[in-house]
Amino acid sequence: MSLDFGPATALSCRECGARYPLGPNFACVECFGPLEAAYDFGDVKRSDIESGPASIWRYRSLLPVPADVASKPNMNPGWTPLVKAGNLGRALGLKSLYVKDDSGNPTHSFKDRVVAIAVEAARNFGFHTLSCSSTGNLAGAVTAAAARAGLDACVFIPAGLEQAKIAMARVFGGRLIGIEGTYDEVNRFCSELIGDPMGDKWGFVNVNLRPYYAEGSKTLAYEIAEQLGWRLPEQIVIPIASGSQLTKIDKGFKELIRLGLVDDAPYKVFGAQALGCSPVSAAYKAGHDVVQPVKPDTIAKSLAIGNPADGPYVLDIARRTGGAVEDVTDAEIVAAIKLLASTEGIFAETAGGVTVGVLKKLVETGQLDPEAETVVLNTGDGLKTLDAVAADAQPTAVIRPSLDAFRATV
Amino acid sequence: MSLDFGPATALSCRECGARYPLGPNFACVECFGPLEAAYDFGDVKRSDIESGPASIWRYRSLLPVPADVASKPNMNPGWTPLVKAGNLGRALGLKSLYVKDDSGNPTHSFKDRVVAIAVEAARNFGFHTLSCSSTGNLAGAVTAAAARAGLDACVFIPAGLEQAKIAMARVFGGRLIGIEGTYDEVNRFCSELIGDPMGDKWGFVNVNLRPYYAEGSKTLAYEIAEQLGWRLPEQIVIPIASGSQLTKIDKGFKELIRLGLVDDAPYKVFGAQALGCSPVSAAYKAGHDVVQPVKPDTIAKSLAIGNPADGPYVLDIARRTGGAVEDVTDAEIVAAIKLLASTEGIFAETAGGVTVGVLKKLVETGQLDPEAETVVLNTGDGLKTLDAVAADAQPTAVIRPSLDAFRATV
Ligand SMILES: Cc1ncc(COP(=O)(O)O)c(C=O)c1O
Ligand SMILES: Cc1ncc(COP(=O)(O)O)c(C=O)c1O
Ligand SMILES: [Zn+2]
Ligand SMILES: [Zn+2]
Repeated sequence: MSLDFGPATALSCRECGARYPLGPNFACVECFGPLEAAYDFGDVKRSDIESGPASIWRYRSLLPVPADVASKPNMNPGWTPLVKAGNLGRALGLKSLYVKDDSGNPTHSFKDRVVAIAVEAARNFGFHTLSCSSTGNLAGAVTAAAARAGLDACVFIPAGLEQAKIAMARVFGGRLIGIEGTYDEVNRFCSELIGDPMGDKWGFVNVNLRPYYAEGSKTLAYEIAEQLGWRLPEQIVIPIASGSQLTKIDKGFKELIRLGLVDDAPYKVFGAQALGCSPVSAAYKAGHDVVQPVKPDTIAKSLAIGNPADGPYVLDIARRTGGAVEDVTDAEIVAAIKLLASTEGIFAETAGGVTVGVLKKLVETGQLDPEAETVVLNTGDGLKTLDAVAADAQPTAVIRPSLDAFRATV
Repeated sequence: MSLDFGPATALSCRECGARYPLGPNFACVECFGPLEAAYDFGDVKRSDIESGPASIWRYRSLLPVPADVASKPNMNPGWTPLVKAGNLGRALGLKSLYVKDDSGNPTHSFKDRVVAIAVEAARNFGFHTLSCSSTGNLAGAVTAAAARAGLDACVFIPAGLEQAKIAMARVFGGRLIGIEGTYDEVNRFCSELIGDPMGDKWGFVNVNLRPYYAEGSKTLAYEIAEQLGWRLPEQIVIPIASGSQLTKIDKGFKELIRLGLVDDAPYKVFGAQALGCSPVSAAYKAGHDVVQPVKPDTIAKSLAIGNPADGPYVLDIARRTGGAVEDVTDAEIVAAIKLLASTEGIFAETAGGVTVGVLKKLVETGQLDPEAETVVLNTGDGLKTLDAVAADAQPTAVIRPSLDAFRATV
């Protein structure tokens, strides 16, 4: 088997630095630390990126993918809008605010980014089935990508997910298995399945393909910087489930600096959780380095990971950059969804309610500088979590088609 | 009031050619024909377009909008993927098939395109409220765009729409009025409201702003041609509600030819309707020039216009280009949604089921050439019409998190 991962040259242990050849491995044999992709980037120029496609593949020279990746059947996610959010900024008292809106991705969440990279890894390793443990969005992203790539799919979710996420995960074909339990139990089950003959030749995008998959989140960092005119934002608010996305956005910013693609300027990273599943913000507030697992209970089901793999790295990044980790209640999540919708015309899922709600709280508590340029992420789509706004999802009035009837409503 | 509509210079009557100054008018005083935008384009170059933004504003020199349109708060729709649909093509026996997938637009339908143009017209005319009669998608597109632009919104829908469309139209704020009746009754009501003092300073995007609004659909033609490498497709399948979109895509192709932006090659336009609301395909099959209104009864609610304003123009275009108008049953719509999803990872709303279902039927009945390059439109999003796939929207199996339990499902 001849592998082509473009600029990626090895896997390296995040804890002890041990290096491994590129393969479907995710944990260090020496210390059990997580493996991540290591690269030999060479010279990467802004102009090469700018002349690339309007998708994450404009950054292919910074990702573990072959140079011809864009020509293979895949979902081509990314290059989503960075919306100048003047109305929301005014409502929150922020001078310069942007929303990075990932709801326009093919299956309407940022998960299309990470899955697109995992598909290339699956092709490289000759896997015939694409799989994952999912809090909802990932399942749909995997089954859609598998359909387009011509791979089989078998994905695993907690049985109690939102109807829209179940429907989306199912419509693309493949098998969708509901597990009676939390996401953390689903995830543990998938780890067992990898070791079993039943899981042979299966690529679990967020388990045995995780070192590749996770790199997809760097593209959020790249796009934000390029869309700001090749500059880093001063502050950024990112949702946390496993913490992978936040960790990789930080990695992406650091790579851009090291490659000279942006000026070396300080940036603060803020993490956002729902109070009903806030192990990382609890650890942050308590000053701990380790994260105590919790049993989730929140409407933000996509963020309901009680035992987040990258929790310690998130704590480190928030502290090192001068950011913070904060949480909001379910009621604050719903209010934030409506605030974002009515000010900017962006309909976020509960995860977007978490980031916007946390942004508001960070301003109100003085943890975030209202004068500094700020980016807040919307990583998912309101149509997938309709229950959050169901109470108001009715016409203002229902009338006969007559001017008199309408006059009576005014 | 100083108006700025960029290259648009007048309104002209589609029937008798009478010219009117640019204003919030939509019907010819001489003959009651519909008015449309007339232009003085000057010299438009491919390179100018290619260096523009990744949105419909790359075509601003071909639209009734000011040159600085992209700098004003708006939804920046468009530049959606043209997906090379090899899997679907093979399934249908087509040699070269593309799906123009408009589900990634900000509110997940092509309506964001037309509304973005109407917002500029509303600004030009000093309207404070944005309004419309809607079969569902337009309502959400209007309320979202109004929120971002800082305009009030009051939109009108038939009371029996899908829950997701009602929720989306409501979450962005503004008033949402359900009308007890069909879309055609909603539309008639809006025409009355325009003449009433209550509707003063209101821009009804698809009524008194229709000559501007409708131009937005030309951008689908422009994008398809540019994404094919500045070439027209040989065949294109387009859904029909009022028929505006189909008519304007034809206009867009003709403009590209006249401006020398593409070669003058023949193309065939095919219209797609749901059998439960098929006044245009009925007229086409009967050889009539006029369209007999019907009372809609179909799951494709977004296409449920029983009295389509542009029906006669659609008939003319289909016949002139050598295309056709065809219809499919509700069951064929559902099957087509699943076929598109499982082959290409694209989750379409019922309108996309109509176009893909009609495409299949056109191939099977020999009306469409399987050797010729074909584009089929998906103009909306499956998350808004979940009921269409609800019967299958369940996990394949629900199990305890154990290998034995999983083994039992295989
Ligand atoms: C919408 C959405 N946002 C954010 C996240 C957080 O992802 P991570 O596990 O990388 O922290 C998820 C994870 O499922 C998600 O679905
Ligand atoms: C998803 C979708 N596709 C297509 C159409 C057809 O539009 P037209 O009225 O321009 O024919 C509509 C109209 O509402 C729509 O909602
Ligand atoms: Zn190690
Ligand atoms: Zn006339």
